[in-house]
Order: sequence, then structure tokens, then C-alpha cells
Amino acid sequence: MSSTRDIDALIDLMAKLPGLGPRSARRAVLHLIRKRALQMTPLADLMQNVAASARECVNCGNIGTADLCDICTSNKRANGQICVVEDVADLWAMERSGVFKGRYHVLGGTLSALDAVGPEDLRIPRLADRIGDEDITEIILALNATVDGQTTAHYIADQLEDRVTLTSLAQGVPIGGELDYLDDGTISAALNARKPI
Amino acid sequence: MSSTRDIDALIDLMAKLPGLGPRSARRAVLHLIRKRALQMTPLADLMQNVAASARECVNCGNIGTADLCDICTSNKRANGQICVVEDVADLWAMERSGVFKGRYHVLGGTLSALDAVGPEDLRIPRLADRIGDEDITEIILALNATVDGQTTAHYIADQLEDRVTLTSLAQGVPIGGELDYLDDGTISAALNARKPI
Repeated sequence: MSSTRDIDALIDLMAKLPGLGPRSARRAVLHLIRKRALQMTPLADLMQNVAASARECVNCGNIGTADLCDICTSNKRANGQICVVEDVADLWAMERSGVFKGRYHVLGGTLSALDAVGPEDLRIPRLADRIGDEDITEIILALNATVDGQTTAHYIADQLEDRVTLTSLAQGVPIGGELDYLDDGTISAALNARKPI
Repeated sequence: MSSTRDIDALIDLMAKLPGLGPRSARRAVLHLIRKRALQMTPLADLMQNVAASARECVNCGNIGTADLCDICTSNKRANGQICVVEDVADLWAMERSGVFKGRYHVLGGTLSALDAVGPEDLRIPRLADRIGDEDITEIILALNATVDGQTTAHYIADQLEDRVTLTSLAQGVPIGGELDYLDDGTISAALNARKPI
């Protein structure tokens, strides 16, 4: 069975991707084999390129292909504001909304005593340095509204509150959200933060 | 943004895989970028190899890396029996059960007047040729228990019934199945095919 060993190994590797299991990995590989010229070869080439070139920005932790990412080097982005996110996926989500025009800082996780994740593991010292280096006036804490995310936000606020204006994302009813499906915490946050029409 | 164009293109290609959408493709690509040495490079290399070497067996339609697949060339498989399946995924499912020791024939779909799929598109003439070429005595029709699958099975049975013994997979209650969750058709098939204990 030596000749199908590569196919089996490919299925095993694909099954390790988040969101795929053994069954969906088999389906994906069969699909790719059927479209090997049109989809599989380009996908393999691109993956090769990205694996060789992708790296973390030394300044903000975003993923790019140079030591400094596109957002850090861009002269079209506003200076003075940093949006702090947990993860590159969160940065991508913010960018898709297209509203924020400043710079980012990717922590790479949240503080966790249980998992022994301290401030040094999260680029928090680097964030403090950037305030001076880049004349930052506002830091927007766009951390997830989870216990860990909010704990981390409080820690950062404690550290930096004397040096810079700190803000966080508004909490309330999501656009298109139905009250009936919202949890009690969201409803009470939205009620407390109610505003005149 | 030239440097992240490859990453965006990779996400777009991954999102075209069955079972993945834009969101899960982003998650998968981020996961791969984080593990680029351990997972992404091996995955890209394997994909490259498989894309270059995978092809359909000219005899049975299975996927392998030579003109004749491992099962067709193996001398450990029993001669005289062919199991007819719709798709390579079905062949893989049969092989995982490990019960069938004969050869296979992959149709590559089902007959469909609507989609203009005729017998020539499904390797049915080749199946008829194999009966003589390989001294086949039994053809097991392991087609899906769908309308299309059963229509195709009837067509093949009509064509070949004079030349060979034709059998199909038993229908009934799946192992571990609960009657309460089974459809009426399955229950009535299982009742009609009841057997003495």
C-alpha cells in the first residue's frame, strides 16, 4: 500500500486542522484530488509560500511577511491610537469592519494564573514601550467580553491609566440581535448603558 | 498590502474546501501559520506530492498513484468478486470495515437523466468487460440506498443478470441504531427481511 501512503498521511494532517475531523478531512482530500490541477496545486504552492514567508510583526504581533507588518509600516493609518486585541483573528475581525484607522497591538492570549501566562508572555511590556515610542494618546481595549479577556483588560488599565486615555468597546445589544435570544448579562449591560434617542 | 495577499489568497482557497467556510478557513490558516514548521510545511509538501502523483485507476476508478491501483494489482485480494460503489469515498468506507477481500469498481456517480449522466459516464461498460477479463462470478452492488443509487443498481442488474450472480448489501437496522430514531422505510425493510434467531 506504499502508493496511497501519501494520501493517508495527507488526510491525517488535514484532520488536525481546527474545524475538520477525520471524515471531513477525507472529503476535503477527495475533493482536492478530483480538482488537483485547478485547486490542489495552487493551494499547495500558496501554503508553501506562506509557510516560508509568514512571521509575527516584532512591533505589534500581527502576522505579515516582514519583520514589521503592513499596518505598522503603513503611512495611511492614523497615529496616536492603538487597538489592543487578544489574537490575530480579532485583528482581522476589526479590519473587516473597516472602521478603525489606527494601529493594533496583538497580545497573543489572555493573562491566566492557571496556565502560567504572565504579562511578559503577552507583549504587555512592549505595549507600554509603544506609548512613548509612538506618541500614543488613546488605547482601545478590544478584548473579548469573557472573564479572562476582562481580567486582562483590567490589568492593562491598571498599568497604563496614568500615561494614556483608555477606552473599551461598548457593550450592548448586537446589531440584528433579538432580545429573546440574548443572555441576561448582555441585556442588563445594554439597559445600564442606555442612551437618549 | 502586497505582503498579506498570499495569506488572503490561501484563506480564499481553503474556504472552497467542502466543510469549510470563510470563517473556519481563517481559523485553519491562522492555526497553520502558528504551526508553520511543524504542520504547514509538511502539509504543503504532501499536498504537492499527492497533486503530482494521484490519478484514477484505469481499471476500477479507485484513486492511486499508478495507472493501476493497489487493490487491482494486489495478489492478496480474492479474485472473482467485484464490489460496485458510487464513489471513492464509499470504497474507503468499505475498506475501513475490513470485511470485503475482493476487488472494487468505482462508478463515479449515479445515472441521472436530469444531469445527462449515462452508463458510459459511469464506467458501466468497463464493468461489463471486467466480468470476462477477470473471471468474475459475483458482483456486489454496494450503492447508496438513495433513489439514484437504487435506480443505478437496477440498471446494472438488468444489464448483467445473465452473466453473473448479483447481490446487494442487506438493508435493516444499523448496529447501535435505536428504533425510535429510524425512518419508516428502514423499519419496514428490517421487518420484511427478518430472520430466525
